[in-house]
Amino acid sequence: MAHPLTGVTVLDLTHVLAGPFCSMTLADMGATVIKVERPGVGDDTRAFPPFKDGKSAYFAAINHGKKSIALDLKDEDDRATFEILLARADVVLENYRPGVMERMGYGWEDLHARYPRLIYGAVSGFGHTGPDSKRPAYDMVVQARGGVMSITGEKDRDPVRVGASIGDIIAGMYLGQGVLAALFDREKTGKGRKIDVAMLDSQLAILEHAVAITTVTGKPPAPSGARHPSITPFETFHASDGLFVIAAGNDKLFEKLCITLNLPLMGDDRFATNVDRCKHARLLKRLIEAVTLDHPRAHWIAKLTAAGIPTGPIQTVDQVLKDPQILARNMVVDILDKNGRAAFKAAGNPIKMSDAPDPTTRAPSPDLDGNRGEILRWLGRE
Amino acid sequence: MAHPLTGVTVLDLTHVLAGPFCSMTLADMGATVIKVERPGVGDDTRAFPPFKDGKSAYFAAINHGKKSIALDLKDEDDRATFEILLARADVVLENYRPGVMERMGYGWEDLHARYPRLIYGAVSGFGHTGPDSKRPAYDMVVQARGGVMSITGEKDRDPVRVGASIGDIIAGMYLGQGVLAALFDREKTGKGRKIDVAMLDSQLAILEHAVAITTVTGKPPAPSGARHPSITPFETFHASDGLFVIAAGNDKLFEKLCITLNLPLMGDDRFATNVDRCKHARLLKRLIEAVTLDHPRAHWIAKLTAAGIPTGPIQTVDQVLKDPQILARNMVVDILDKNGRAAFKAAGNPIKMSDAPDPTTRAPSPDLDGNRGEILRWLGRE
Repeated sequence: MAHPLTGVTVLDLTHVLAGPFCSMTLADMGATVIKVERPGVGDDTRAFPPFKDGKSAYFAAINHGKKSIALDLKDEDDRATFEILLARADVVLENYRPGVMERMGYGWEDLHARYPRLIYGAVSGFGHTGPDSKRPAYDMVVQARGGVMSITGEKDRDPVRVGASIGDIIAGMYLGQGVLAALFDREKTGKGRKIDVAMLDSQLAILEHAVAITTVTGKPPAPSGARHPSITPFETFHASDGLFVIAAGNDKLFEKLCITLNLPLMGDDRFATNVDRCKHARLLKRLIEAVTLDHPRAHWIAKLTAAGIPTGPIQTVDQVLKDPQILARNMVVDILDKNGRAAFKAAGNPIKMSDAPDPTTRAPSPDLDGNRGEILRWLGRE
Repeated sequence: MAHPLTGVTVLDLTHVLAGPFCSMTLADMGATVIKVERPGVGDDTRAFPPFKDGKSAYFAAINHGKKSIALDLKDEDDRATFEILLARADVVLENYRPGVMERMGYGWEDLHARYPRLIYGAVSGFGHTGPDSKRPAYDMVVQARGGVMSITGEKDRDPVRVGASIGDIIAGMYLGQGVLAALFDREKTGKGRKIDVAMLDSQLAILEHAVAITTVTGKPPAPSGARHPSITPFETFHASDGLFVIAAGNDKLFEKLCITLNLPLMGDDRFATNVDRCKHARLLKRLIEAVTLDHPRAHWIAKLTAAGIPTGPIQTVDQVLKDPQILARNMVVDILDKNGRAAFKAAGNPIKMSDAPDPTTRAPSPDLDGNRGEILRWLGRE
């Protein structure tokens, strides 16, 4: 039983979300992550609400099990420490604006010359090239500019933000894939690589269907509310006590749905094929709800599931955290405090791997500079 | 100049989106991906609209550069071919319902015993364990059950679906990270691993902020429309000609914003801290729009950008595809047809890596069984 990244050391200069989310996944797979933070303040998210016992739940959720050392990269002595860390590390991650690392003397060219095995992972709003390279960005800026907001929400109303910070998270996940590919590659070449991931690029990368529609038809898709844009029925329906989803993705499933709900629509030309059903989607929704409004959603979910039709409730986050399937998969873990008591709950590791531990708890998130002594001893600097 | 995954062979039994999205990223980093498809029909998405010259743009966008062989895994001869492929492959990917691979004699235990170096990546709706393991799922079922829909949309209206298929895509990206970590690990141990990723688990994994709020306050967050749930101002604003985003994530940026918009709010207690601004978010939005409604959004974006304040337009997908920054980053590539002509446009590779090619075109997506001859020759079966 060993994590696949056991022995990998990640020097993490990133803060807030995209970079720390990436290093969290690496830590969950066994990497040692050392956060290098600004003295005095540290990662901005240390000050993000909500708090419990004076600690940010948000910071804890993303930074559990990492170590922290505060270094001023303009100070001579701290730079010396940082450079010994660089010599020991397998990966360095940063999310400064392009040019900042170069000004500190730690740009990719310099680092690659001095530490040829070091892998350098950068995540930024717009990437290290291009006309807007140096502009600042936050999650919502790239959700807006990258197109996902334009297809999320209700038709004829203002677009909405995706409730999860996917502007950051998708970029962090691409950075993770790049770093892991570079680690594999380095086993053969002995050389590190630079990975440059932009939040904006990453937003475009997830628009598969919308890009296909736009480039073939010339017309960008509008927001489709709670429906799939080109499959019907594949949307939310009201039961007597709340909303649930029916996703009947093909003709066979639609036939099963009609049988299960006792809907006499099977010879009806308006609903014969998916194309027909898309044309008459609003009518079909009403015909289905005329049935489903009569009973609570648990009734319909049980019945449709028995018939093999993909279905499920719309759950609020508190409901998700109690979902038996989520709990059976060890997807809600306890982040411990220093005394070994459960302090926060957080999402577990969704990468379930044979022969690797999947613990139900996580080590605490570090205090700012909380591992200085331990790290300096490891470096032989004490 | 070499891709980091050059020489890696991926045997891909997956179809539709989560699995193929994973293998697309691996292919973009240099892996050889062989799609093993059902004879006669192949991947369902071959039939997904929109079409161009009889070919699905959707299928092309996700499967470019892969090879295809049609194999009936119940046929003796095809099984023999498949087993030689397994012996040659580094990775096998599948997205069947749990139990299907076992029934065909290709479950993890069997494969691991016969091909100890083979890495086995599985993606499914609910994972290979837990009470709902065998239920069918589609993107929208896990978006609904996994909580992201409950925080996406407008307050007091029905939740909406995220316009991109993040139920599939996030799971595919976690699978990619698991496979890459296992490839790295195998360089040291010589042994393959099984990776079991559930779409539902993956949805919970991206709810960092919502999980923190729910577990600390006991109350799940409501959908927050086009606002960040706990930072203000961090939302959309109307200009004279459309919507744009201002993301002033801290006090210093808020001060800059007041100066740039000539808003006399700096001594005002209602807006002194982020907590105050969150309390008076609706009022603040109106005070800002009283200014921004006077000019087009290009005016404000230029002005705010000059002041260093994160901002940007809400773009439709056609606008994103023409965005100068996106184009400068080679994020719109041409998928070629067999005659080497540009047939489709698709998103490029967001993982920009030093010393790796970043081509502006992609090889065609394969015809069903289109690479049979070539693959059989490679296996010495012809």
